[in-house]
Amino acid sequence: MTTQGTPQDGIRTTTVTGAGGVPLNILDAGPEDAPAVVLLHGFAQSAWSWVNQLTAPHPLRIVAPDLRGHGRSGKPDSGYAGERAWADDVAAVITGLGLHRPVLGGWSYGGLVVMDYIAVHGDSALSGVVTVDATLTAGVPGAELLFGPDFFALVPQLLAPDAESMVAARQALLELSTARPLAPADLLTQLGASVRTPTRVCEALLGRALDRTDVAASVTVPWLAVHGSEDRVVAVAAAEEIASAQPAAEIQRWEGAGHAPFLEDPARFGKELADFVTKTRH
Amino acid sequence: MTTQGTPQDGIRTTTVTGAGGVPLNILDAGPEDAPAVVLLHGFAQSAWSWVNQLTAPHPLRIVAPDLRGHGRSGKPDSGYAGERAWADDVAAVITGLGLHRPVLGGWSYGGLVVMDYIAVHGDSALSGVVTVDATLTAGVPGAELLFGPDFFALVPQLLAPDAESMVAARQALLELSTARPLAPADLLTQLGASVRTPTRVCEALLGRALDRTDVAASVTVPWLAVHGSEDRVVAVAAAEEIASAQPAAEIQRWEGAGHAPFLEDPARFGKELADFVTKTRH
Repeated sequence: MTTQGTPQDGIRTTTVTGAGGVPLNILDAGPEDAPAVVLLHGFAQSAWSWVNQLTAPHPLRIVAPDLRGHGRSGKPDSGYAGERAWADDVAAVITGLGLHRPVLGGWSYGGLVVMDYIAVHGDSALSGVVTVDATLTAGVPGAELLFGPDFFALVPQLLAPDAESMVAARQALLELSTARPLAPADLLTQLGASVRTPTRVCEALLGRALDRTDVAASVTVPWLAVHGSEDRVVAVAAAEEIASAQPAAEIQRWEGAGHAPFLEDPARFGKELADFVTKTRH
Repeated sequence: MTTQGTPQDGIRTTTVTGAGGVPLNILDAGPEDAPAVVLLHGFAQSAWSWVNQLTAPHPLRIVAPDLRGHGRSGKPDSGYAGERAWADDVAAVITGLGLHRPVLGGWSYGGLVVMDYIAVHGDSALSGVVTVDATLTAGVPGAELLFGPDFFALVPQLLAPDAESMVAARQALLELSTARPLAPADLLTQLGASVRTPTRVCEALLGRALDRTDVAASVTVPWLAVHGSEDRVVAVAAAEEIASAQPAAEIQRWEGAGHAPFLEDPARFGKELADFVTKTRH
């Protein structure tokens, strides 16, 4: 593990070695002895998805890795298909930073990576789970009902090999991800982060066939599942899928939010996250 | 001209029609009756290059268009080779926003566009000229001495057709453009803006052969030429080229700054810009 100082707004940058030797870049903010929340970003995004959580003054330690193939983490040619690499990457983040029973959160595809982790390692090293506009299934029969038609329409362009299509598709995905437009400079920051994920990685991610209903049923720690009522990427039905699989999960439907509630209403997200973390410690 | 309200930090977004019907997206900040400064960004960048000037509280109106082929402006397949389109685009910005004798500024390639404008329209509609780390010549014998070796080494990758090379080259160019690294999120914002310029536009821009020594000699309004001493893209010798062509120009060599002084020391840039504008009005 190497720590590279404080590049911005008190955010520390750290590298740990993930599965197969892949370097994982991590943004890490807040007091090192505060309760830790590990937040996993979504498809073709980066740790900077959590910029508002990383720079907010709430009393948590926020740990946001770039998943393999994303941001400033390693982007091997292969190693995206199985659950093991994803699971061990998350374990490497928790162990590498010496986190004691963190809450593990994941947005969208990051929620599937949370399930990868629990499938392999269980939930005994966690104090809670947070999923945000996430689904338990993808690429299996029935899962198509959990994604929005605008997202499906975008998939061919997301996989197109040429650079102009790539940029346009990544921007369209970001625009699809909030119910109201992000401020232009904030959109550009997310776009700059998104284009660091090669199209070959997007293809590998979309190629996985997953049904994590059983994994969800096995969760023993508190679980908060947030879903925006106006999500155009992952349908609100995905939250009902979580509720069915794991009746103990607390489902929050956020009226008016889209696919990225933590970007759309960071103040509320920060408060709900802090409240949830407090609950997991009693 | 259409105005789309105030998307961020008091920045107005406006569209005017440039040469050949190309829509030009403009960011516009500060009091509408304040002295206006039109700022043209560089190669493969955008109006967001001037984010610090657009959000600073100084008493100027800052007008920053996306040049054709860049940002959210139109990106026609052709129309980049001649001076006329560039010149008429700038005239359309000045006329479309009803600016009275603005200062016209250009960074790097934007300085060449300032020369395009003066070559066609003269400087009678301007109250002053600002160039920032700009050159008068490009693609003609001798001009190669005015660019840094690291920039030349990057050109093949800047013109590579594949998306991964494109993103890597745009990031490398941004990293080359400051003497000290930008904060990571600020770099991502600029990267997100840069990738909106297609590689075919970069190729057209780099294909122009220009010697603007005579145009520079013809300038009658005050001229401030800023150049960072540590510029690794355009050599400091380019400022001497301006001084030779136009002895009345005020040359400022900024010790320690790289290719983007307005990003590297926005407070000083704002002050020098305000001082210069005050001088042009006496």
